[in-house]
Amino acid sequence: MTLPPEFALIARHFRPLAGPGALCLTDDAALLDPPAGRQLVLAADAMVAGVHFLPDDPPETIGRKLLRTNLSDLAAMGAVPLAYLLTISLPRGIAPGWLEAFAAGLAEDQAEFGLQVLGGDTTSTPGPISLSLTILGHVAPGMALRRAGARAGDDIWVSGSIGDGTLGLAVLLREQPADAAGFLADRYRLPRPRLALGQALAGLASAAMDVSDGLVQDLGHLCRAAGCGAEIEAAAVPLSPAAAALLAAEPGLLPRILTGGDDYELLFAAGPEAASDIRARAGACGVAVTRLGRFVPGEALVTVRDRQGTAMPLGRGGWSHF
Amino acid sequence: MTLPPEFALIARHFRPLAGPGALCLTDDAALLDPPAGRQLVLAADAMVAGVHFLPDDPPETIGRKLLRTNLSDLAAMGAVPLAYLLTISLPRGIAPGWLEAFAAGLAEDQAEFGLQVLGGDTTSTPGPISLSLTILGHVAPGMALRRAGARAGDDIWVSGSIGDGTLGLAVLLREQPADAAGFLADRYRLPRPRLALGQALAGLASAAMDVSDGLVQDLGHLCRAAGCGAEIEAAAVPLSPAAAALLAAEPGLLPRILTGGDDYELLFAAGPEAASDIRARAGACGVAVTRLGRFVPGEALVTVRDRQGTAMPLGRGGWSHF
Repeated sequence: MTLPPEFALIARHFRPLAGPGALCLTDDAALLDPPAGRQLVLAADAMVAGVHFLPDDPPETIGRKLLRTNLSDLAAMGAVPLAYLLTISLPRGIAPGWLEAFAAGLAEDQAEFGLQVLGGDTTSTPGPISLSLTILGHVAPGMALRRAGARAGDDIWVSGSIGDGTLGLAVLLREQPADAAGFLADRYRLPRPRLALGQALAGLASAAMDVSDGLVQDLGHLCRAAGCGAEIEAAAVPLSPAAAALLAAEPGLLPRILTGGDDYELLFAAGPEAASDIRARAGACGVAVTRLGRFVPGEALVTVRDRQGTAMPLGRGGWSHF
Repeated sequence: MTLPPEFALIARHFRPLAGPGALCLTDDAALLDPPAGRQLVLAADAMVAGVHFLPDDPPETIGRKLLRTNLSDLAAMGAVPLAYLLTISLPRGIAPGWLEAFAAGLAEDQAEFGLQVLGGDTTSTPGPISLSLTILGHVAPGMALRRAGARAGDDIWVSGSIGDGTLGLAVLLREQPADAAGFLADRYRLPRPRLALGQALAGLASAAMDVSDGLVQDLGHLCRAAGCGAEIEAAAVPLSPAAAALLAAEPGLLPRILTGGDDYELLFAAGPEAASDIRARAGACGVAVTRLGRFVPGEALVTVRDRQGTAMPLGRGGWSHF
C-alpha cells in the first residue's frame, strides 16, 4: 500500500527536521523528557498570508519568521529554546517547490537556534496559507522575566532598533524606497530574537516583553501590568541607519516607527542602579541597548515627547487584528 | 489607554479558561512545572472551516472538536491530559456571539477532561476560520503506547464503533437521512477521545493509534510500523445502531464506513493471550472493544474480507489532504 500524498510530504520535508522525541513523526504524539530541575516556558503564534507575511515572500523566510516570532516570546521570558510543534494549512494548488523551500528555511534556523521539531499537522485549506507554531523553552524555576514588575522610577530600555519591520513592509509594498542593502525588507521577513539578551537580563530587569505590536502599545502593556505610567523621548528611540535615512527624507514617518509592529526587540525595565550592569551584559551579548525614558507614578499612560518636550498624539499606539 | 479590541476579546473570552501557569494570558509565554517523574506527550492538530468542520457547525462544538481530536492523540499514546495552547484566525466580520459560544464549548470540555489553556494567539484572516491546537499530556517514562510493535499473530482490536463520523458528515450534507436522535451528526461534531481506555492499555497492547483518517488507511500505518500485513472481516467491524440502519438501507455505504475519517476510536494490537484482560479493562472503562482480525506475516497490506471471504477493493483506504 503506497502512502497517501499527505504522508509522503511529511516524510520528505519534515522528518529530516525532527528530533528523537518526535518518533520520526509517525506516532500520534511526541515524547519529551522535560529538562530536570527547569520550568517549561510555552508560547504559540499563528501567521496568515496577507496578514502576517506577504503572499509573495520567499517560502524560505516564512517558516523562519514564525519560528523567530515565537523565539522572541521565549527571549522576552529569558528562556532557553527547546523544541516546537508546527501546523501548516496549504492551498491544494501550491507550487511543488514551496514546501521544500519552506522546510529548508526551518532547517537553517533549527541549526542556528538549537531547536528540533517535535510534531505537527499538515492540512489543506481553501483560503490563504495559515501556519501555527507552539514553542517550548525552559528557565530556572522562578527566574522567568515577567511583564509585571516595573516600578515608577525604573528606566525603560529597548534592544536593537525600532521601526525596521514596519518600514521593511512599506518598502516591500513600494510605499517607501528600498535601502541598497535590503536591510529593512530583511528585518520585516526575518526578526532577530534577542535570546541571549533575555537570558542575560534574568535577575536584573524588573519587567520585560518583546515589541511585536508597536513600541507605544507594547509599552502600554508594561504600564498596565505595573500600575504606573511611562514617559519616553522620541529622539531617544534607536533607529537603524536605513530607518534614519527614510525618516530624514520624510519626518511624517515618526508615528509609524513608534507604533508599527514587527520589531521583535526586547522592551524592559530596570532600576537606575542597574544601568551599567545592563550595558555590560548587553555588550557581552553583542546587542545594543538604549534607555528611552522612565516609568512615572500615575495612570497607565504612555507619553512620547518630541524634541520640544511636547506630548505627541499617537492614537491607539499599535496594531490590533480586530 | 484602553486596550485594543484584540486584547479585550482575549480577556473576555479566554482568560476565564486559563490555568495558573498561563499568567492570565498577559505575558509573552506561559510557565509550566512539568509533572515530576513523568514523560511529556505532545501533539498538534489544525482545523479549517470547510475542510475539518462545516462552516455552519455550531461554534460551541468547533473548539471542542479540535480539543477532542488532540485528546484522541493523547489517548492513542496512553497519556493523561495536562494543558493546551490554541491559535485562532478569524474573519474580521465574524458574528459577535461566535467567540463567546466557541469559548463556552471549550470551557465545558476543559471541565470534562481536566484541562486548562496555557496560551495562544488570536489573529484575523481574509480566509476561512483556521484553528490550531497543541496539547500536552504525560505518561510514566517508557510506558507510552506506540504505533510500532504489532507482530504477526497479534489480534487487531478497535474501540467503540466505526463510520459514525463520516456518516454524520453525510447526514449534515443531506446525502443521507438523519437518525431521529441526531447520533451521527453529534459524532461528526464531537469525537469521544478514549482516554481511559488508552491509559488502561499500557503494558497490554503491543501497538496502538487513533483512527482519524479511515480504518483501513490507519490500519495500514500499524502494518508499515510492524512490517507485516493485516486481515480483517468487514462483518466484524462494530457499527452503531444508527450506522447499521443506514447500511441496511444502502449496502453500498460499506466502503465509506471502512475508509471514511473522523472516527477517533482506538485501533490497537495485542497477543491473543491478552484478549480476556483487554475485555476486562475496556469493560471497566465503559468502552466496547471488538476484535476485527489479526496481523499476518508478509507485506504491509490490509485485506478486508466480505462475508464470502473475498478481499474487498478499497482503493487508497482513507483521507488525504493532498
